[in-house]
Amino acid sequence: MISKDGLTHHISAQFNAELEDVRSHLLAMGGLVEKQVNDAVTALIEADSGLAQQVREIDDQINQMERNIDEECLRILARRQPAASDLRLIISISKSVIDLERIGDEATKIARRAIQLCEEGEAPRGYVEVRHIGDQVRNMVRDALDAFARFDADLALSVAQYDKIIDREYKTALRELATYMMEDPRSISRVLSIIWVLRSLERIGDHARNISELVIYLVRGTDVRHMGLKRMREEVEGIGADNANVVQSPDDK
Amino acid sequence: MISKDGLTHHISAQFNAELEDVRSHLLAMGGLVEKQVNDAVTALIEADSGLAQQVREIDDQINQMERNIDEECLRILARRQPAASDLRLIISISKSVIDLERIGDEATKIARRAIQLCEEGEAPRGYVEVRHIGDQVRNMVRDALDAFARFDADLALSVAQYDKIIDREYKTALRELATYMMEDPRSISRVLSIIWVLRSLERIGDHARNISELVIYLVRGTDVRHMGLKRMREEVEGIGADNANVVQSPDDK
Repeated sequence: MISKDGLTHHISAQFNAELEDVRSHLLAMGGLVEKQVNDAVTALIEADSGLAQQVREIDDQINQMERNIDEECLRILARRQPAASDLRLIISISKSVIDLERIGDEATKIARRAIQLCEEGEAPRGYVEVRHIGDQVRNMVRDALDAFARFDADLALSVAQYDKIIDREYKTALRELATYMMEDPRSISRVLSIIWVLRSLERIGDHARNISELVIYLVRGTDVRHMGLKRMREEVEGIGADNANVVQSPDDK
Repeated sequence: MISKDGLTHHISAQFNAELEDVRSHLLAMGGLVEKQVNDAVTALIEADSGLAQQVREIDDQINQMERNIDEECLRILARRQPAASDLRLIISISKSVIDLERIGDEATKIARRAIQLCEEGEAPRGYVEVRHIGDQVRNMVRDALDAFARFDADLALSVAQYDKIIDREYKTALRELATYMMEDPRSISRVLSIIWVLRSLERIGDHARNISELVIYLVRGTDVRHMGLKRMREEVEGIGADNANVVQSPDDK
């Protein structure tokens, strides 16, 4: 076996089509996952157990999409021996599907809580926070996917930055709900359900951030995980202010 | 570019050494992660904020290990164009590190709660459950890694099966703690901390299960995620009762 020269310019039209296919499958999965988050939050806020049930049923489709995309990536790795930016694209896709699948799982958990609250009766607090944080993390998921679609490292960076805001709002909401539970212990079980929902939303924000870090890796070739936001911004802005296209991005080895 | 023929028997000694290296780095990372889980739980139970602080500091090492293993996998993919079981090994490793890193994150969260409880004073309940579930998930992590080290699909299956027990015990513990909070609302904040710790432990069990599913994929060539345990057992037992060695396992395409 010989090592690759890292060139990825002279690839076949068929290979291009395969890369385009798997990328569009990722984005389709992302679109469905985003809808799941939206529907789960709506089901909770509007006490719509039918919609919540639908979210739970659709989760299987998402799992199947993950499996299919994984197989596509594996096939491309085995047959095409991609190098440099193509390899980075496949790696980014195969990691992003993990985050998308887990966002789907969190949506399902929210749907389960929605059904539970339909049965137990509404929680006395927390719906404003769920709606507010829910809207924001859904936007994060959408932006992370848009950043993936457009190889837009700047947009990806803004998603990562936004995650800090979510974390702060989440903590504030938790403190308020804990205080409320002390005042009205009879509501503890229902307020705990809302707390779990907020927790799921916060996790969804984390996953959106993970995806946006993969976009930066894809576009800039730099692994920005576990960097502070400041260094991450320097990486995104420092190497080049324009959005690099994946094909133009620097080879990694 | 030509497609691979799927043969992996005639590989160079150097390639073998590279595969062995990355695998041993994964296991070393796993050993450290397992220790982190252990230390975090001990720090909480013994109210040892020094130990908790140490867990938080070591997390950086784990992140660095993840990054290094990722780079090794990328290098092997780019230079060696692995096929069949070798490709499966690389994929399994690059996914397992994600779970190991997140187990490390959960250990850090437990350590943070341990420090918080050192400051606020002990929670009135939940330590028995933390110790009990903590011991079990740590064993799951260890068994998942042993299964990886020995390509042991049966051991991996038993980890996946065990996750169901953890989920049940976790739910029981949550119910009891919620009831306790109603009886003693002043303890809500501290009991919530214990609930978050239990949640982290339950997540660690999920990640150990994920790794064990990757081991089954590695050894048997079948993607068993999202299968019920019954079908998973049939996959593990049905294809062959002996533990297949990774080199002998069936090619996937």
